[in-house]
Amino acid sequence: MKLYNFHRSSASYRVRIALALKGVEYEYVPIKLSVDPQSEQLRPDYAALNPQRMVPLLEDGPVRISQTLAIIDYLDRRWPEPPLYPADDAGRSRVMSIAAYIASEIQPLPCLRVELHLRDAFGFDRQKLSAWRTHWIDVGFSAVEQMLSSPDTGRFCHGDQPTAADCYLVPQVSNARRARVDLTPYPNIARIVAACLELPAFSGTVAEAMPDHEPMTAH
Amino acid sequence: MKLYNFHRSSASYRVRIALALKGVEYEYVPIKLSVDPQSEQLRPDYAALNPQRMVPLLEDGPVRISQTLAIIDYLDRRWPEPPLYPADDAGRSRVMSIAAYIASEIQPLPCLRVELHLRDAFGFDRQKLSAWRTHWIDVGFSAVEQMLSSPDTGRFCHGDQPTAADCYLVPQVSNARRARVDLTPYPNIARIVAACLELPAFSGTVAEAMPDHEPMTAH
Repeated sequence: MKLYNFHRSSASYRVRIALALKGVEYEYVPIKLSVDPQSEQLRPDYAALNPQRMVPLLEDGPVRISQTLAIIDYLDRRWPEPPLYPADDAGRSRVMSIAAYIASEIQPLPCLRVELHLRDAFGFDRQKLSAWRTHWIDVGFSAVEQMLSSPDTGRFCHGDQPTAADCYLVPQVSNARRARVDLTPYPNIARIVAACLELPAFSGTVAEAMPDHEPMTAH
Repeated sequence: MKLYNFHRSSASYRVRIALALKGVEYEYVPIKLSVDPQSEQLRPDYAALNPQRMVPLLEDGPVRISQTLAIIDYLDRRWPEPPLYPADDAGRSRVMSIAAYIASEIQPLPCLRVELHLRDAFGFDRQKLSAWRTHWIDVGFSAVEQMLSSPDTGRFCHGDQPTAADCYLVPQVSNARRARVDLTPYPNIARIVAACLELPAFSGTVAEAMPDHEPMTAH
């Protein structure tokens, strides 16, 4: 099995965590995202594998899957233990709602391809990009913080075992830290992320630990 | 069961289609999204139900679910017939990937809350907003069109029965038509949407057929 991914992509990191929680081995195929118009995810050979021109992409024999919610759903069916979604319907829905909120309403806005477009098509400078990034992370984390103010929250986002929700939360917080967002207003988020990072599945799959890691350059 | 939703919200329309395909009755609770700072999804009583402050929200007894991927997953488990995901792993992953791509990479960019922020925080005028909207719909539809150029595509996005992928595609095309995006470059998309709209589950749940429908006003 191959995971086409990029060390600093938060979507890639979600899947690395899920694979690590399940103890599944895979081949790490780096796809370098950059500000270059020839950035690797846009090249024809990769676009033929993944028309979405994004990372990550999971390849398991003849099956190729893009989009992290679909990849994690697949992993959870193929390797059921430990489960990444609770067995009860209400718990499963809560975990998936948190994951999908991060996937659809936070991450897509302050991401590289959108920021490049704001810069190139609308002349956003660093200050405007920073304001854009901070705004959407704050809007998103306010909602997540409120969702986590629930008796269903435990040591992790849902109870005392990591679930898919944690696989989404921790990478989004890595992004937020890079963007220097103040996490003080989000004590539940900060506490849960700290608990996650005590586990090797989370701390061992961070960008800095990946084979393609290199220091960030500004764009 | 209640569906808090808004006639013109494409995310709401996805769930209306899914409920109609399954023949499930529900109470339609309109939540009016508007450019008003007191827009209904932001009011404290609704935010207490849904901290994400978005529509749709499904309420089934004590279970409340936001995010369409989580809602459709729930509906598909609670009312398995007709299934909205194929039974085979590869098919399920393909359908979920198309749905999640639309949910995470297309819809969140040219949507009301983002466009209001671009207008209010960055001074985007109508022309810039239109360029923003058209750009992301075109980027997204190019990818979807390529994904649909597959032998797995049939009368619908996956084979000859509607799936979750169609529940996402048709509302996104409604949005694109409102934005006057030219669909000529996307013949697979146009053909499949036409096939879907021959079914009452799709044509009977459009914005214009909803009890809260009113003509669009510009923002």
